Amino acid sequence: MIILKIGGGKGIVENLDEILRDFAALPGPKILVHGANHEMRVVSEKLGRPEKIITSPSGFTSRYTDRETLEIFEMVYSGVANKRIVEKLQKQGVNAIGLSGIDGRLWEGKRKEAIRAVEGDKVRIIRDDFTGTVEKVNSSLLKLLLDNGYVPVLTPPAISYEGEAINVDNDRAAAVLASGMGADTIVMLFEAPGLLADANDPNSLIRRLSKEELSSSMDLGEGRMKKKLLGSIEGLDAGVKRIVYGDGRIKEPIKSALAGNGTIIE
Amino acid sequence: MIILKIGGGKGIVENLDEILRDFAALPGPKILVHGANHEMRVVSEKLGRPEKIITSPSGFTSRYTDRETLEIFEMVYSGVANKRIVEKLQKQGVNAIGLSGIDGRLWEGKRKEAIRAVEGDKVRIIRDDFTGTVEKVNSSLLKLLLDNGYVPVLTPPAISYEGEAINVDNDRAAAVLASGMGADTIVMLFEAPGLLADANDPNSLIRRLSKEELSSSMDLGEGRMKKKLLGSIEGLDAGVKRIVYGDGRIKEPIKSALAGNGTIIE
Repeated sequence: MIILKIGGGKGIVENLDEILRDFAALPGPKILVHGANHEMRVVSEKLGRPEKIITSPSGFTSRYTDRETLEIFEMVYSGVANKRIVEKLQKQGVNAIGLSGIDGRLWEGKRKEAIRAVEGDKVRIIRDDFTGTVEKVNSSLLKLLLDNGYVPVLTPPAISYEGEAINVDNDRAAAVLASGMGADTIVMLFEAPGLLADANDPNSLIRRLSKEELSSSMDLGEGRMKKKLLGSIEGLDAGVKRIVYGDGRIKEPIKSALAGNGTIIE
Repeated sequence: MIILKIGGGKGIVENLDEILRDFAALPGPKILVHGANHEMRVVSEKLGRPEKIITSPSGFTSRYTDRETLEIFEMVYSGVANKRIVEKLQKQGVNAIGLSGIDGRLWEGKRKEAIRAVEGDKVRIIRDDFTGTVEKVNSSLLKLLLDNGYVPVLTPPAISYEGEAINVDNDRAAAVLASGMGADTIVMLFEAPGLLADANDPNSLIRRLSKEELSSSMDLGEGRMKKKLLGSIEGLDAGVKRIVYGDGRIKEPIKSALAGNGTIIE
């Protein structure tokens, strides 16, 4: 089984038809996980609620998600982005079903009681934030759908153990999904050729990496890439055999990544 | 099996907790269908794309749905409204799954090639409109979910035979759903006590009606009510035994409607 995770950057959205054609051609059971961060930014601004990015003391960035932001998040992720992918797959004859992590408690996890955000020299405690971490996947629901010929298209939010919608990192959610489903491969497409030794130099692509090398490369990650690396380590720790990073802006991006033109971690 | 259809009016949204508590308590298999017209209006305006209502030569009103409107529609219906209901049901221990009609081709139908809109004395032909009529329901997918303990929460859009998302009337879609699933009862909750002999007089409630009486009462309907009546006739024609209209703004609205405090058509 293959899990495809696509980012929500502008370059990905613009190449969506090509990505989905490539995905549709993959044989065997498959699941798609997507983001929508570019459109989230655009819609939040149009609605007069520009997004706020916060940085934790350990250097991870995330979106500050109060209840109003969560509703915009659901509009963009579950509404427009998820249904657009489902519609495009349906047009290609793939019987896709779009679900968020709260549907059937697909992605369940812990809501953070409080998060810490660095503001200048200070660290502020935020309590009205709905974010958390996926810990469990409802694999029986996904198997039910896959066994009956459906292709699941998944998006955050996830659901807390108390039944609240929570914003989660979807790279890490994809890793929990892959391990829960016994998938051997995760392909992650984003707006870069793969993992770069120097984030500003597209020619510094790292083609192959062992899990041990990845663990000692955490400092290569900046911003969102840092979470991707963390998710990958978690995925490999949980039994996923191979994680492949590839450029989502090119022709046949999945085939290309699987052929070794991005970064392969195994 | 019971199908509950709830409108998307402001009074319904404000009473959502009460409605869903009542729904959660219903024994046996059940499906919820919802609208979101009030929030559609609010969000469309916030996004600077106020909705346009058009009237057909035969007096039916509908929302003019070009591609951009369709995306806002998916944001509001599939995104915020659908996920809010799923989350609230999950909090009450109901394992709800939210789906639109394009997921798994759940509601399939015909896109209208062109629609006619009355503008003053003239009739204009509109061709970039994505609306249509539901003709088929994927009952095997719904049975799969119901048999495994899930409660489907359904919303438009539907999908055309060509694989395009289409805006459809959800009262009529609920009727096709009920007949495809062999449901005996549809309960429809909206912002009125039931069918009124005089739309402006809440005391003119019609408590019981036969199908024949309903067919000859089509002139009682104004605006959206007209489509509700049409959907009800279609549902009864297709084998649904009983359609119940009830007030969605009160305590225990489903129990109350089933007890005969609204309009029962059978």
